[in-house]
Amino acid sequence: MLVPILKQGDYLIASVQSELSDEDLLKLRDELVKRVGELRSRGVIIDVTALYVMDSFATRTLRAIAHMIRLRGAETIIVGIQPEVAFTMVQLGLKLEGVMTALDLEEGLAYLQTLHTSKRR
Amino acid sequence: MLVPILKQGDYLIASVQSELSDEDLLKLRDELVKRVGELRSRGVIIDVTALYVMDSFATRTLRAIAHMIRLRGAETIIVGIQPEVAFTMVQLGLKLEGVMTALDLEEGLAYLQTLHTSKRR
Repeated sequence: MLVPILKQGDYLIASVQSELSDEDLLKLRDELVKRVGELRSRGVIIDVTALYVMDSFATRTLRAIAHMIRLRGAETIIVGIQPEVAFTMVQLGLKLEGVMTALDLEEGLAYLQTLHTSKRR
Repeated sequence: MLVPILKQGDYLIASVQSELSDEDLLKLRDELVKRVGELRSRGVIIDVTALYVMDSFATRTLRAIAHMIRLRGAETIIVGIQPEVAFTMVQLGLKLEGVMTALDLEEGLAYLQTLHTSKRR
């Protein structure tokens, strides 16, 4: 299951369509890090609205993606974490420390734009 | 004992009126996480001024609420922890790690506004 990655201006949007295997997650990571460099993106949004499970591997990989992308000079925002997913993550002690989150794609884009504007000033 | 949740602009204010049972706390958690999504809130204030006891379950639940709400893209601030409550919490080793606190509702709102403005810039 490949995750489509769309380019929208300075940003990349990875829209997860269905549950991902560990291998898919690693592919997504490599693809995003590569594209950020190629397209000189300033921000990445990973939309996980379609996910109803987020295990420790997924959490760790998302955190790793965000850190790698930051090292490449862009920001990552995870959007669309469902209430049930948030609940389970907290129960299992899974944390997305140091990773920005937003309610949905719209809020995520607004957040990136704000970050971007403040960097420019 | 239901906790009234007021909407004030981009923020939600949950004003605890009296001691809460464990069940009330869980209801408050579910209700807050639901409303943050529905109303696209950017911040939540939980006012515990009326509480004279804060046990380990309450502390853990408040911490869980803050984490869940952060995963949904909003911030939580606990306000109004009484001196005696703070004293007992420290004696019992109960911690609100990773959770923002403020003296009272006014300070809490000011804090959220600051966070919000710095995000916007």
